[in-house]
Amino acid sequence: MDSKSDFSLLNLTIVGLGLIGGSLAKAIRKKTNIGRLWAVDVDENVLKLAKDEGIIDEYYTEPEIPLSESDIIIFCTYPGKTVEIIKSNTDRFKAGSIVTDTSGIKSSIVKEIQSVMRDDVEFVGGHPMAGKENRGYEFSHENIFDNAEYILTPDENSSGRSIEILSELMKTVGFKKVVLMTPESHDKRIAFTSQLPHIIACALMNNRNVESDLGCIGGSFRDVTRVADINSDLWCELIYENKSNILDELDNFILDMNKICDTLRMNDVDGLKSMMKDSSLRRKEMNK
Amino acid sequence: MDSKSDFSLLNLTIVGLGLIGGSLAKAIRKKTNIGRLWAVDVDENVLKLAKDEGIIDEYYTEPEIPLSESDIIIFCTYPGKTVEIIKSNTDRFKAGSIVTDTSGIKSSIVKEIQSVMRDDVEFVGGHPMAGKENRGYEFSHENIFDNAEYILTPDENSSGRSIEILSELMKTVGFKKVVLMTPESHDKRIAFTSQLPHIIACALMNNRNVESDLGCIGGSFRDVTRVADINSDLWCELIYENKSNILDELDNFILDMNKICDTLRMNDVDGLKSMMKDSSLRRKEMNK
Repeated sequence: MDSKSDFSLLNLTIVGLGLIGGSLAKAIRKKTNIGRLWAVDVDENVLKLAKDEGIIDEYYTEPEIPLSESDIIIFCTYPGKTVEIIKSNTDRFKAGSIVTDTSGIKSSIVKEIQSVMRDDVEFVGGHPMAGKENRGYEFSHENIFDNAEYILTPDENSSGRSIEILSELMKTVGFKKVVLMTPESHDKRIAFTSQLPHIIACALMNNRNVESDLGCIGGSFRDVTRVADINSDLWCELIYENKSNILDELDNFILDMNKICDTLRMNDVDGLKSMMKDSSLRRKEMNK
Repeated sequence: MDSKSDFSLLNLTIVGLGLIGGSLAKAIRKKTNIGRLWAVDVDENVLKLAKDEGIIDEYYTEPEIPLSESDIIIFCTYPGKTVEIIKSNTDRFKAGSIVTDTSGIKSSIVKEIQSVMRDDVEFVGGHPMAGKENRGYEFSHENIFDNAEYILTPDENSSGRSIEILSELMKTVGFKKVVLMTPESHDKRIAFTSQLPHIIACALMNNRNVESDLGCIGGSFRDVTRVADINSDLWCELIYENKSNILDELDNFILDMNKICDTLRMNDVDGLKSMMKDSSLRRKEMNK
C-alpha cells in the first residue's frame, strides 16, 4: 500500500448514514485500511444494520463520544443540520482533527462553520459529484463514487495537510479526481451544473401537459426529467441557500430560451441549425 | 403463429436504411414471417451490408421497382424527402398497398401526402417513440423498439384494415403498444414530450457556462443534456414543421420558469417544496 493511502492510524466518524453516508462508509470499509470506523445517526435500525454487516465498528445516536475520538469526521447530513451539530459540539472535537461535509452548498455553511470552529480543528467543505434518485442507507453502495469527481472547497483556514488527507481518502474510495475550488466558485458552478437541471426537470413534471396520462413519452422526456424525483426537503434547503446564484442562472437560461423563440419566429433556420451543431459537438466532447 | 401476425403473403419495402429503417428491417426479418423484404437507400454500401447480413432479400437505389411490388412500404427518410419520393412515384404504388412513415412530424406531411395519394393506395402516418443518439445503419438493432410505444395517426382516409395490419406488424417487431391519435394531436403532444426537451438540452449546451472546461458535472446535467447530441438537419426540419406548437410550448415553459423565479424571489419555501413533491410523485408514476 502506498504510504499516502495508509489510514490505519486514523479513526473516522460518519455523521448521517443515508445514501451518501452509507456509501462512503461501505467504500471506506472495503477500499481503505482505516483505523476505527464509527457512525452517528438518529435511526438506530440503520446503524445496527451497518454494524451487523461489518461496515462500521460502532454506532452512536449522539455525536459526543465519536467526535471526541475521531481524526476525520465526515458530515453527510442536510446542510442546516451539519451546522447545528457542529455548533453544539465545538468543544468536543479532538485537537488536530479534520472535519468535512458532503452537502451541495458551500459558501454560507463554510462561513458559518468557520465562525465557530476552534483553531485546533480544521473544517474543509466537500461535495461528491455523485448520487442516485433513491435515498437512504438501503440504496447505498461502495461503488457509486467510481469515476465521479470530488470537489473540496478549501478557504484561508485550510492547511495543505487536511487537503492532502481528504484528497487521498476520496481517491482511495473510488473518485477519479479531486477538484479544488473556493466555496464561492463551487456554489456558482453548481447553480448551473446541478441546480438548474433539477429545477428544469421539476418544472417539466409540473407542466400543464403532465396529467395522469403520461403515455407516448419518448426517451428525451424521460432523460430530462429523471432528477425530478427529488428529495424536496433537502433540495429546498440547497436552493434557498444558493438563491442568488440560481436566480442568475435561471434569468440567463430564460433569456436563452427566449432567443430560441426569436430564432423560430424569424424562421432563422441556419441559426437553429448552427446552435444544434454546436450543442452536438460539445455534448460529444462531454462524453470523452 | 397467431393468424393476425402472419405476414407471409406480404412484401415489404423500407425506404431509408438508417437507424430506424435498419432497426425495423432487422426486427421485421428476425421477428416476423414477412414475405419479401426490400430496402431502398442512396448508400449502396449499407444496402449491400444489409443484404450480406441476410436482413433484406434485395436492394435498390431507386424506388420504382420495389414500390410497384410491395404491399407495405415504410418510409424512414426525412419528412421532406418522404413527401418528395411519394410525389414523384404516385403512379408506381401497387393497388391496395399500405404506405406509412416514421417521422416525428405528422400534420403537414400527412396532408401533403394525402393530397397526391391515389384512391387505391392508403397512407397512414406513424412515429416510433424510440431512438438513440447515434444515427445510421451501423447502430441499428432489432431490439431498440422493445417496450416503446408506436403512434399511428389515421385520418379520414384511413381504413380499419390498414390500421390493423400496421398495428400488428409494430407489436410483432417489439413495440409494447400502438397508440392511435390524429396527426394534429400527435404534433401537439410531440412538441411537449420530445421537441421541448431537445431544445432545452441544446440551450443548456450553448449556455455561457459551457466552455471547453466541462469538469465537475454531475449526473443531472448529463441526463438533461443527453439528447443535445442531435442530428441538426433532421431536427431543424422537424422543428420548423411544427413551429407553432413548439412556440406555444416554449412560451408556456418560459412562463413556468418565470413563476419559479418569483417563488424564489418571494422566499416561498412551501411553494417550491410543494412543486417538488408533485414532480417527485409524477416522475415516480412515470416509471411504473
